[in-house]
Amino acid sequence: MLAEQGIISSTDAASIAKGLQAIQIEIADGEFDFKSDLEDIHMNIEGRLREMIGPVAGRLHTARSRNDQVATDFRLWTRASCSVIDSQIRQLMTALLDQAAAGADMVMPGFTHLQVAQPITWGHHMMAYVEMFGRDLTRFADAAKRMNESPLGAAALAGTSFPIDRFRTAKALDFDRPMANSIDAVSDRDFVIEYLSAASITAVHLSRLAEEVVLWCSDLVSFVQIGDSFTTGSSIMPQKRNPDAAELIRAKTGRISGSLVALLTILKALPLAYSKDLQEDKEQLFDVADNLELSLAAMEGLLREMTPDISRLSDAAGSGYSTATDLADWLVREAGFPFRESHEVVSGLVRLAHDRGLTLSELTMDELQAACPAITAAAREILDPRKSVMSRTSYGGTAPERVREQIQAWKEKLACERD
Amino acid sequence: MLAEQGIISSTDAASIAKGLQAIQIEIADGEFDFKSDLEDIHMNIEGRLREMIGPVAGRLHTARSRNDQVATDFRLWTRASCSVIDSQIRQLMTALLDQAAAGADMVMPGFTHLQVAQPITWGHHMMAYVEMFGRDLTRFADAAKRMNESPLGAAALAGTSFPIDRFRTAKALDFDRPMANSIDAVSDRDFVIEYLSAASITAVHLSRLAEEVVLWCSDLVSFVQIGDSFTTGSSIMPQKRNPDAAELIRAKTGRISGSLVALLTILKALPLAYSKDLQEDKEQLFDVADNLELSLAAMEGLLREMTPDISRLSDAAGSGYSTATDLADWLVREAGFPFRESHEVVSGLVRLAHDRGLTLSELTMDELQAACPAITAAAREILDPRKSVMSRTSYGGTAPERVREQIQAWKEKLACERD
Amino acid sequence: MLAEQGIISSTDAASIAKGLQAIQIEIADGEFDFKSDLEDIHMNIEGRLREMIGPVAGRLHTARSRNDQVATDFRLWTRASCSVIDSQIRQLMTALLDQAAAGADMVMPGFTHLQVAQPITWGHHMMAYVEMFGRDLTRFADAAKRMNESPLGAAALAGTSFPIDRFRTAKALDFDRPMANSIDAVSDRDFVIEYLSAASITAVHLSRLAEEVVLWCSDLVSFVQIGDSFTTGSSIMPQKRNPDAAELIRAKTGRISGSLVALLTILKALPLAYSKDLQEDKEQLFDVADNLELSLAAMEGLLREMTPDISRLSDAAGSGYSTATDLADWLVREAGFPFRESHEVVSGLVRLAHDRGLTLSELTMDELQAACPAITAAAREILDPRKSVMSRTSYGGTAPERVREQIQAWKEKLACERD
Amino acid sequence: MLAEQGIISSTDAASIAKGLQAIQIEIADGEFDFKSDLEDIHMNIEGRLREMIGPVAGRLHTARSRNDQVATDFRLWTRASCSVIDSQIRQLMTALLDQAAAGADMVMPGFTHLQVAQPITWGHHMMAYVEMFGRDLTRFADAAKRMNESPLGAAALAGTSFPIDRFRTAKALDFDRPMANSIDAVSDRDFVIEYLSAASITAVHLSRLAEEVVLWCSDLVSFVQIGDSFTTGSSIMPQKRNPDAAELIRAKTGRISGSLVALLTILKALPLAYSKDLQEDKEQLFDVADNLELSLAAMEGLLREMTPDISRLSDAAGSGYSTATDLADWLVREAGFPFRESHEVVSGLVRLAHDRGLTLSELTMDELQAACPAITAAAREILDPRKSVMSRTSYGGTAPERVREQIQAWKEKLACERD
Repeated sequence: MLAEQGIISSTDAASIAKGLQAIQIEIADGEFDFKSDLEDIHMNIEGRLREMIGPVAGRLHTARSRNDQVATDFRLWTRASCSVIDSQIRQLMTALLDQAAAGADMVMPGFTHLQVAQPITWGHHMMAYVEMFGRDLTRFADAAKRMNESPLGAAALAGTSFPIDRFRTAKALDFDRPMANSIDAVSDRDFVIEYLSAASITAVHLSRLAEEVVLWCSDLVSFVQIGDSFTTGSSIMPQKRNPDAAELIRAKTGRISGSLVALLTILKALPLAYSKDLQEDKEQLFDVADNLELSLAAMEGLLREMTPDISRLSDAAGSGYSTATDLADWLVREAGFPFRESHEVVSGLVRLAHDRGLTLSELTMDELQAACPAITAAAREILDPRKSVMSRTSYGGTAPERVREQIQAWKEKLACERD
Repeated sequence: MLAEQGIISSTDAASIAKGLQAIQIEIADGEFDFKSDLEDIHMNIEGRLREMIGPVAGRLHTARSRNDQVATDFRLWTRASCSVIDSQIRQLMTALLDQAAAGADMVMPGFTHLQVAQPITWGHHMMAYVEMFGRDLTRFADAAKRMNESPLGAAALAGTSFPIDRFRTAKALDFDRPMANSIDAVSDRDFVIEYLSAASITAVHLSRLAEEVVLWCSDLVSFVQIGDSFTTGSSIMPQKRNPDAAELIRAKTGRISGSLVALLTILKALPLAYSKDLQEDKEQLFDVADNLELSLAAMEGLLREMTPDISRLSDAAGSGYSTATDLADWLVREAGFPFRESHEVVSGLVRLAHDRGLTLSELTMDELQAACPAITAAAREILDPRKSVMSRTSYGGTAPERVREQIQAWKEKLACERD
Repeated sequence: MLAEQGIISSTDAASIAKGLQAIQIEIADGEFDFKSDLEDIHMNIEGRLREMIGPVAGRLHTARSRNDQVATDFRLWTRASCSVIDSQIRQLMTALLDQAAAGADMVMPGFTHLQVAQPITWGHHMMAYVEMFGRDLTRFADAAKRMNESPLGAAALAGTSFPIDRFRTAKALDFDRPMANSIDAVSDRDFVIEYLSAASITAVHLSRLAEEVVLWCSDLVSFVQIGDSFTTGSSIMPQKRNPDAAELIRAKTGRISGSLVALLTILKALPLAYSKDLQEDKEQLFDVADNLELSLAAMEGLLREMTPDISRLSDAAGSGYSTATDLADWLVREAGFPFRESHEVVSGLVRLAHDRGLTLSELTMDELQAACPAITAAAREILDPRKSVMSRTSYGGTAPERVREQIQAWKEKLACERD
Repeated sequence: MLAEQGIISSTDAASIAKGLQAIQIEIADGEFDFKSDLEDIHMNIEGRLREMIGPVAGRLHTARSRNDQVATDFRLWTRASCSVIDSQIRQLMTALLDQAAAGADMVMPGFTHLQVAQPITWGHHMMAYVEMFGRDLTRFADAAKRMNESPLGAAALAGTSFPIDRFRTAKALDFDRPMANSIDAVSDRDFVIEYLSAASITAVHLSRLAEEVVLWCSDLVSFVQIGDSFTTGSSIMPQKRNPDAAELIRAKTGRISGSLVALLTILKALPLAYSKDLQEDKEQLFDVADNLELSLAAMEGLLREMTPDISRLSDAAGSGYSTATDLADWLVREAGFPFRESHEVVSGLVRLAHDRGLTLSELTMDELQAACPAITAAAREILDPRKSVMSRTSYGGTAPERVREQIQAWKEKLACERD
């Protein structure tokens, strides 16, 4: 660009370009000798270039400043990281979709307040996480798009008097456009905070899933078995499977939102344009990227080696009078009861069954009809958790057919975006 | 919808609708008698409806649950708040654009490390904030779009066996579509965290501007004067203008990012689907919305009554050898010096001037040429801050013509989106 | 003090004191007419005093400023709040001690990674929380002690030329001493942050206990039953007991640490002495105090109405080969095996039992001795969870006798400090 | 201890002790071969010991578990870090005391709202920070004291059946006592959070001082000059002194309070006893310790090379009618005016002077007496900033004699504690 605009001569440009290509190879081959007294990557490269091509190397830095260079480098790094995270989230979603497909009909308890509330399907539960991570994809995509503007050419803070073409360099670096204000270009770190916010939400999603995995693995619950690679044992109890990976994923949430707080605090009340405070942004972002990548990979692997215990899940699905609302809905739907009345009837039956230590379906037909003559054999059938989940066919509901539609829709969506 | 789908009769539906309209009027007129023993708004309305239309009121709650109702209400509230914030940010940007237009030619110092670095224009500085708040607009817009899905019909967590039409109710409430997973619908609070993240970034922007206002108002700096409505005086020093509004805006950043931390912590490791913990989300969001609205309004008002002190700004712009890089760039651009060499020349001149307590432009032509014969009268002219800013015509640079282009572009953009 | 030091006359002082006493009664009786245009409490009181005693009321404000008054008021408030929290924590500890005493012999599983690890006693588990809350007491006490210095007399920021006696006013307000630097006196908010830090740690402790209560109440675990006052039911499932109180306590952690972040952010990089930003401290502290008091009271009540299910706990204590380490320790202790060897022996037995679907104690004596001839009948006895807990008599261990000693020690400590 | 209690033989104990001493030397000499497949430091040492002394090495781990070992190690590390921080804070305080002593009489402006409020002395301002850091010392001391209990002997979580003497090992490791509850011993991380809280408050203090240094260094303010080692220059402007060190110190606040948030979030709702989540605590603490040490050292060095500009400070001290309250106080004190009346008089004079572009002391005696006949020559003298600071002799006030007393008191306190 500098040559195209006549700022430096074509000869100088060619010589610089050739030198830089040689340096690129040296770095790739691990043969570049980084010197810490040259402070940063830019000075190291310019220094080496000078050794190679002499004083003309000094023209490399024309019309730019370390402020806009660092801002540009950091945006490139963050944009690349968004892309890595995007791909990892997709892999995690694929693992969830596979779990969902395998368990689209598998009945399990749905919880509110960690109390069994209503039967749902394993597939439906997995798909709830697909939705969450699907939103995360769009948040990282929005962030990547918003940050995709080039600071290059902002120079120290005020722009430059050289007749540079910032659209040209923006395009060369795959940015959508140059940033429109040079002061903002060197002082903005919104893109870091936005990345950290998106990462924090993803980490929260991971922590919710990790918490469930820890619960499901507990001796007391035993809903799933997870693979050896994602657990540690005990030297004395070889059967033991401590869900270490899930616990670490859960803990990373703190680390990641801690970094978000760090950046928000660092930026608070910082006057324009550049201050050295901004240097603290990099370690936080690198650490979050590393830990989020690790968590996503670990969670994907863990899901791939997690086996639900069908009979435990099914048994638990029927506990806690989980189909009481199904009966109440049946009374409204099929027998024309107003909602509140049907609730009273069913609530009486639950109390009766509970006092006698029975489940609702263990009450006899006579007992049911004594409480409410409108209850038929069809009504009684609805007390079966399997029937319950099959009946919940509203859009987004837990019925296997609905779940399969969602799995299909997401598979197409992910495949389509991949192309 | 319930009637359209044949879930309740048209007569019942009409009777319920009529009752609800009457209740709406009662509430609007302040005549509705809220009873705290009825727990929440839904039960109050249903209770009053029952008084009006009898037991058929019980059909109102058909095919829904408090879980999906609360999720729906809260999304509606948050979506509305995004819209209020959007409009306030636009007003604030308009105030900044007006300041920028009035000061597009006004020279002031540009700072790095709070040291005078290079001359810039007041308009350019204001426009840096326009860029920041412009990004905030898009973040709130993205959040509003992403949250605009309807939880209604998810019922308690598993969907329902009633043949409801969730697309119909979504449309009626101006949602883009129903949420695709009923468990996610009742347990998701991403939209709250995303709102709080966007608010935190906006608050950081406000705090940076507020910090600058506090600095600019200080007796030591005196770059601006702000209106009485946004300052407090002292009973004994009537000339005193404490920038209380700016200080409060600055402090709100802490409050707002504190609420973000609160939500991230609350959601951490929360198993699906609904837990009572989620109830804590509302107060945090309401408090942030109130405080962000207050801050945006205060900042807009403050900007409208802020007068820059042209001569103080201009004097300061020339201090600190702020045009040294202009001379160095001139040597590269016009006299063909490599970048690093031109820096050495100018650095020698700065040292010379500094040792003698002079500015660069106070050095004589002879002294300049003694140091570097290539320096001409044209080069010397560039040492004037006014000339410096006029020369920085690169895209996004501080030259008045560039700043005016940006002002124009933003005015059109805001006007266009308004239509 | 002003009169004693001869700064105002005794007559004026008497007249002011009489007026203030009258105002105190008016406020107590709810008859004081607060006027919002008089800005704050100090101006309201001085205004009313002027109505009562005329212009001499103007002498009330001699040698002080709103800055030191507000700092003094806020310390008094915070100190009083520490005392309320102290008393509430003690009540909570008493509830825990009562639970511990009732269950000193009750066997339950001790968990690591939410896996059953070793049998412990209910009393021992409760006492772990007594230790945590016991540390909280000392943290609030340290904070209360450190903040107990009087800012009064610092005036606006520089002290005063009136010959005041700050030791006298400090003593009158029960402060340990006056603050030693007037600038620090008006700008310091360490005491608020320290209170919020102590509150955050207490909230974390409460959240850990709350999480356990939620788990213990779950249908899947059923370790405890909690009283109706601390749960909500379901209109349709009257047996349902949603642990709402525990969930809300758990969520308050986020709110409280959010306020800590708010204050840390507000104070960050705030130059001395007073800035308006400091005004934001009060709402955060008041909110935390309210919510912490609520949480402590709710947890105490919840514990008082919580009944452990002895047989569920005892059954679970024996699951997961929880006494394997007991056998390994026995082999080391009684049969002289090196630690690592004994582990290998027991690990083989666990594998054998696990493969055959048995517990360790279900293996026959022959099978045990086939694996390791050193195992005797006494060794086999140690596999009983009850025997296991009785054997762990090391200081601080789970043996009932040790637990009872700790209960006794804490009861004496709390009783002693109460006097 | 194991031998003393007869748990292992004296021969074995001697052999183990000898081996461990040899290992200690190997580690000190950098000759120890750490193997990452042995997982952690404990297994590495035991492995090496086994190579040296054979199977008896297996007895080393008798009556302990990795859980209590890690908890013990981490407390030892944190306690040692408190001691390092303590010593660094004392050095920083000494640098502040030296600045205070050198500038006990030096007049500077005292600010509220970054507006000149009243004259103070440089020494007084420095001493405000001495108070802050003095409180930090006590917070770290309290934390160190509270954490100084030994987890060793808690074993996995339930204590042990070996007849160990935990008081003996506690004493050997310089702990005050063993922890009283073994579950608490392995699951408690209060000491980490408390350390991070104390560090966050210290970091806030550092950020306030750093902010002032950045302001004072600004071209606009120029109150101080700082040494080259704590600034960076510009290649082109050799006179430039960017206060990089101060900016980095200011930014560290975010990093440190981010780690506090990380830990609070990690611990939130974590059930007892040990979970893998706790492993995330170490990196946070190590990072905070490193960065706090760096910040304290940098600030101390910076203060040692910071030179206040006496005449700039003194000139600024007289600006902004900073002595108006002195005149008002004089009228109350010497002429018997009620406070509010004296304020009205002075406020009129300020308005008069301000309208005419004069300072108060530039008004003639006639003009002063025209406004208020009670004003004498002595009163007029008080308008001199130097007289103002000398008059503020109240305890903790800015008068040089008061400041010197505080310097002396702190020097004695620090010296005394050192012994």
